[in-house]
Amino acid sequence: MKSRTPLNIAIIGYGFMGRAHSNAYRQVGPFFELAHEPVLKVACARNRSRLERFADNWGWAETETDWRQLVERSDIDLVDICTPNNSHREIAEAALAAGKMVACEKPLALNADEGASMVRAAERSGRPTMVWFNYRRVPAMALAKQLVDEGRVGRTYHLRSRWLQDWTISPDVPQGGEGLWRLERASAGSGVTGDLLAHSIDQAMWLNGPISSVTAVTETFVKERALQDEPQVRRPVEIDDAAAFLARFANGSIGTFEATRYARGRKNEDYLEINGEAGSFAFNFESPHQLEYYAHADDGHVRGWRTIRVWDDDHPYMAHWWVPGMTLGFEHTFVHQVADFLADLRDGTTTCPDFAVAQQTQVVCDAVLRSAAESSWVVIPVAAAD
Amino acid sequence: MKSRTPLNIAIIGYGFMGRAHSNAYRQVGPFFELAHEPVLKVACARNRSRLERFADNWGWAETETDWRQLVERSDIDLVDICTPNNSHREIAEAALAAGKMVACEKPLALNADEGASMVRAAERSGRPTMVWFNYRRVPAMALAKQLVDEGRVGRTYHLRSRWLQDWTISPDVPQGGEGLWRLERASAGSGVTGDLLAHSIDQAMWLNGPISSVTAVTETFVKERALQDEPQVRRPVEIDDAAAFLARFANGSIGTFEATRYARGRKNEDYLEINGEAGSFAFNFESPHQLEYYAHADDGHVRGWRTIRVWDDDHPYMAHWWVPGMTLGFEHTFVHQVADFLADLRDGTTTCPDFAVAQQTQVVCDAVLRSAAESSWVVIPVAAAD
Amino acid sequence: MKSRTPLNIAIIGYGFMGRAHSNAYRQVGPFFELAHEPVLKVACARNRSRLERFADNWGWAETETDWRQLVERSDIDLVDICTPNNSHREIAEAALAAGKMVACEKPLALNADEGASMVRAAERSGRPTMVWFNYRRVPAMALAKQLVDEGRVGRTYHLRSRWLQDWTISPDVPQGGEGLWRLERASAGSGVTGDLLAHSIDQAMWLNGPISSVTAVTETFVKERALQDEPQVRRPVEIDDAAAFLARFANGSIGTFEATRYARGRKNEDYLEINGEAGSFAFNFESPHQLEYYAHADDGHVRGWRTIRVWDDDHPYMAHWWVPGMTLGFEHTFVHQVADFLADLRDGTTTCPDFAVAQQTQVVCDAVLRSAAESSWVVIPVAAAD
Amino acid sequence: MKSRTPLNIAIIGYGFMGRAHSNAYRQVGPFFELAHEPVLKVACARNRSRLERFADNWGWAETETDWRQLVERSDIDLVDICTPNNSHREIAEAALAAGKMVACEKPLALNADEGASMVRAAERSGRPTMVWFNYRRVPAMALAKQLVDEGRVGRTYHLRSRWLQDWTISPDVPQGGEGLWRLERASAGSGVTGDLLAHSIDQAMWLNGPISSVTAVTETFVKERALQDEPQVRRPVEIDDAAAFLARFANGSIGTFEATRYARGRKNEDYLEINGEAGSFAFNFESPHQLEYYAHADDGHVRGWRTIRVWDDDHPYMAHWWVPGMTLGFEHTFVHQVADFLADLRDGTTTCPDFAVAQQTQVVCDAVLRSAAESSWVVIPVAAAD
Repeated sequence: MKSRTPLNIAIIGYGFMGRAHSNAYRQVGPFFELAHEPVLKVACARNRSRLERFADNWGWAETETDWRQLVERSDIDLVDICTPNNSHREIAEAALAAGKMVACEKPLALNADEGASMVRAAERSGRPTMVWFNYRRVPAMALAKQLVDEGRVGRTYHLRSRWLQDWTISPDVPQGGEGLWRLERASAGSGVTGDLLAHSIDQAMWLNGPISSVTAVTETFVKERALQDEPQVRRPVEIDDAAAFLARFANGSIGTFEATRYARGRKNEDYLEINGEAGSFAFNFESPHQLEYYAHADDGHVRGWRTIRVWDDDHPYMAHWWVPGMTLGFEHTFVHQVADFLADLRDGTTTCPDFAVAQQTQVVCDAVLRSAAESSWVVIPVAAAD
Repeated sequence: MKSRTPLNIAIIGYGFMGRAHSNAYRQVGPFFELAHEPVLKVACARNRSRLERFADNWGWAETETDWRQLVERSDIDLVDICTPNNSHREIAEAALAAGKMVACEKPLALNADEGASMVRAAERSGRPTMVWFNYRRVPAMALAKQLVDEGRVGRTYHLRSRWLQDWTISPDVPQGGEGLWRLERASAGSGVTGDLLAHSIDQAMWLNGPISSVTAVTETFVKERALQDEPQVRRPVEIDDAAAFLARFANGSIGTFEATRYARGRKNEDYLEINGEAGSFAFNFESPHQLEYYAHADDGHVRGWRTIRVWDDDHPYMAHWWVPGMTLGFEHTFVHQVADFLADLRDGTTTCPDFAVAQQTQVVCDAVLRSAAESSWVVIPVAAAD
Repeated sequence: MKSRTPLNIAIIGYGFMGRAHSNAYRQVGPFFELAHEPVLKVACARNRSRLERFADNWGWAETETDWRQLVERSDIDLVDICTPNNSHREIAEAALAAGKMVACEKPLALNADEGASMVRAAERSGRPTMVWFNYRRVPAMALAKQLVDEGRVGRTYHLRSRWLQDWTISPDVPQGGEGLWRLERASAGSGVTGDLLAHSIDQAMWLNGPISSVTAVTETFVKERALQDEPQVRRPVEIDDAAAFLARFANGSIGTFEATRYARGRKNEDYLEINGEAGSFAFNFESPHQLEYYAHADDGHVRGWRTIRVWDDDHPYMAHWWVPGMTLGFEHTFVHQVADFLADLRDGTTTCPDFAVAQQTQVVCDAVLRSAAESSWVVIPVAAAD
Repeated sequence: MKSRTPLNIAIIGYGFMGRAHSNAYRQVGPFFELAHEPVLKVACARNRSRLERFADNWGWAETETDWRQLVERSDIDLVDICTPNNSHREIAEAALAAGKMVACEKPLALNADEGASMVRAAERSGRPTMVWFNYRRVPAMALAKQLVDEGRVGRTYHLRSRWLQDWTISPDVPQGGEGLWRLERASAGSGVTGDLLAHSIDQAMWLNGPISSVTAVTETFVKERALQDEPQVRRPVEIDDAAAFLARFANGSIGTFEATRYARGRKNEDYLEINGEAGSFAFNFESPHQLEYYAHADDGHVRGWRTIRVWDDDHPYMAHWWVPGMTLGFEHTFVHQVADFLADLRDGTTTCPDFAVAQQTQVVCDAVLRSAAESSWVVIPVAAAD
């Protein structure tokens, strides 16, 4: 460990993602052989007392309440943005201008225009960027990618994606404020589209290539909610509670997507299935250690969906952890992303989604929202193959 | 049994459905207390030698090769139409004009115009009609309907429906001819829309009320196939291999539908899930004896999806069969439909979908095909509540 | 059909099994190509009014209340015994002596002494016999046998068998009388051992060879129950409510067996798993259309338990029924057994368990009961390989 | 964090468990509110170079190669024993004599005689002890305990336990040496009995009370294996590859237990099911975030096994981690045990199994081995209720 190069990190935001990232930086070291050692250098947020507790709890060496000061510090290598979506662009561009590497929570931005600006800023700076599409790093999902790359799926016909939750069914859930900015359009940009579909679209295009057109519907089931910070004030809900869209992929396959926070009993069903000529697979984050796989090449009378429990040494990421048969959890997806980012840094590769890749997802999110607003198909200009 | 009134049946068509219906007429007697006893009176088809074998095998007393003669016979009470879709209208209208009851395979017709004509013919005749939407009669699906009626689902937010098969992936499957008319537009009218979506839409509206608008996509993956009866001739495939659509229901909920014959590994996944404020359920015909049910009213720490195995005496239809714990199969859905139709006949009720109900599904099928053809939303005039 | 040889059947007993067998004789004809056609000739039982209703419902041509008369009739080919276990021996031996073929419900007899006598009677007569171990005829179970025969399991290490039910938990369930003779020792001989373990042991030895020794425990949880026919009389319960045993097989593998009617929530879990060097499989009658299969030969990173839905044309029995993807039910196991017996009759084979095979199971049942009574291991003389 | 009392820990052994415990000490702080903060003070093992790497990787401040020196150090509060089973007793007794708290890997000892000695040593010292029966700390298993305590199971009839693995099927796996002492009798005392059944028995008695008698079978399938450190030397395998036993519990219920490393396809199936009058539950460590629960009190037609995904704030341990819907992994069971032990320390409670509790399991393990050796039932003196 002593021989590792320290990588000084500044984190902005101490919410759910601030905790998840902090844990990832702490945990990556003992489990992965890397050239760099993440150093929890500075934590930054506006509420000083909460910030102090956060930093103390996770071992951040220093605190800072002004992100503009922070991004200028010469002792910082990487700025990690865990703030609500409406501040991603400004912070990222400032950090890049100051020559920092930038890790940014998803979605990349409030909208595709902002995202395009961020991509240009990243190109100008030439610094590495990364967006936390951590679900790619679930070992079972990474195995799905491997199956695709091995040709076990073949020509694809169908992709179906769902992200089903149920936590906002009650009209008593307020909007805005601590932990609830995701329900407020000004902070989040959109509802389930930016929150859930962004992940779904990222996974889908990673596995099945670009989306070329969409037709969408969105719905807001609870029309008005109280403000968390001013409970006596009720405001119209401006975000999409649910969104669904049909997609054509550039490769000729058909996709169905759905995301909602109103699916009673579905707590975190991030489901992805691809049907191909040679085989199919299905992933469900509610049993995240499993991948279902159907191989048409199996002998006919013993064909069946295989439940692959992704916990063996020959599975992605798993040899770094315990022994076969032992599962990981949600938090490990972030550890894996840090490990991959640090490996990229060492090797000069870019296996993690950077701003340019994340922008492709942002463009599709915008198309979904526009399609729903206009009740029409929206064609997406497909970038030249990279 | 001796006290039952004979109900003389004429069946037209000896294919897959001809067999399933024949079995249902044979089997309903020993298991259900009814006022009528179905009599397998006449089987009708054009190919005499096959017809004779069919009649002999199933116990049809007589045969007839001309359906026009058949429907005029005075000793027939019920005409059962198991022919390809393009002959439904003509036969049904002739049988109704001759004063027969008519049972017709789904979909009702080639299109909604034909269907409307059939509904008018049924109204004119005043005779009972029935369309074989047999999947309503899976006990687990019937239990789902009961849960809805008991208020266990409450206000619905989402309905998702899939019907996934994989039997036409190979480009070597021919089209047309014996057993394969479902791949030919002239006989079938459409592909998966009439074959699979018709069932899905029927179930959805039965459980969740009318559909008010749709946006759809269809695709034909294999563009050309040989003719079964002339293998050297290849013709463009005119049917939809796959179809998907988004729907708005009149009750404010959102639906996603998909049907395909290209979902490698999914043999007969007739999946239906509804998420409501009070609870959710999910049904999958690949495990047809089960209904998944989530009750929000359960104590929080022991909430979970219940796998209800629908095999107890207090479950729909089950007390008529064996003992608790013993499952039924596909064929029993047809027996149940016959039992229900005969009970309707006895009681003057109409619990089975008749032509008018089936026409509502036909209208949505047409809207799906038009939406896909025109790449636009299609609004469906919702009939006044019945 | 006309060319089939009639096989005149006399059935004794109209209970649950009387119904299941009647249905099987009715249904085998249309689905299987056979040389014989079962004729439902005579139904026999002591209660005349119930017998008449039974015969009328199922189409038995005649009735008879004295089984001794019945077995002497010259117009009967096969006597089917569906009576409580304590009459199997007497009826079977009389029927064999009269030159009839005999089908007998399981377990073969009250105990192994009776069973041995019946085997001798069968040998003396030279007539075909069959015992209704119908669970071998679940298509998924038959596929398991095929996997074993194909070498897909290899050297076996473990077999685990459970048969879990929960229908006698309530102390209010009475014993004896119509439908409840299974709770009465005089009629049944034992409780779950003869009722459930008999099936489990039959399946286990069919798939994994002879059992060489056992150590067992039995328990009666409810010590006293009212008589069904005299509700004011309470009698000690003499049967085993639950039984479990460990077994050594002649092939060196270890077996665990359990059967109970006190497993709350397990309605009919007939579970069988075998672990071998090359692969494993698991069957659960609560999802009877499935077989779980694990193939060690699969590539390491995509190994997993395959859920084989046993509904394709290349699966045992299935090509006789509907189309791929359509499940069967409980009743079809009996149809399959009749089909196999009639094929045996035509071909001179004995694929169905006859009295001699069923006696091997009877011997193990006796050993289990003795081991439990004596709290000691019991060694079973293994018959020379047949 | 600053206000927490440091708890200086010395760990002995750097194998699989050394890693798991180290991680637990590192991770408990940020997630649990505690009075103590574990300090990774000294790591101890004989192989210096490996030890240094281990200490460096996990952040142990110092190293020591002589455990006798270590346990005498005045700056150590807790000695954590992660060595092979044959050294547990000696180290634990020395540490206790030196006034240390002791945490010991399971099984407590090589056998019950050793265990009894350790219990006496603990009593003499009066110091807190803890044995790492970490599987009690899987949230779903802890929820099972809560269900029992809430009366949701009621009078129990059956407990069935399996621990199935398949990692020693190949005869090429050597025995003894680094990582493989579990296959060597001298180091491990027994095979699956001490390794797997110890956990199973601990869980079973925790949930269902004392075991009063057992009848067991053990088997060694591969009779001879090479030594890992001297590959040219082959020695008889002395451990039990597989073990199964039937048990009577003091409360009148019947138990079946099985453990093996020869169940092809079962990687880590720690399965536990209890059937009671009011309800049943089932846990399987292969899907460790789930508990299956059957409530007889549910309305009859909607009764079914509930799949409780144990990831909500009102589930054991879960409020300390992320947000609802996010799963944990294997490693968290150790974190929970540390958290519970530190809470015990703060509160003066003993919720963690101490030496005395672990000894009850040791006694049953010994009885199982003796029963198998002698082919007879073994009665276990049940301790007076605590």
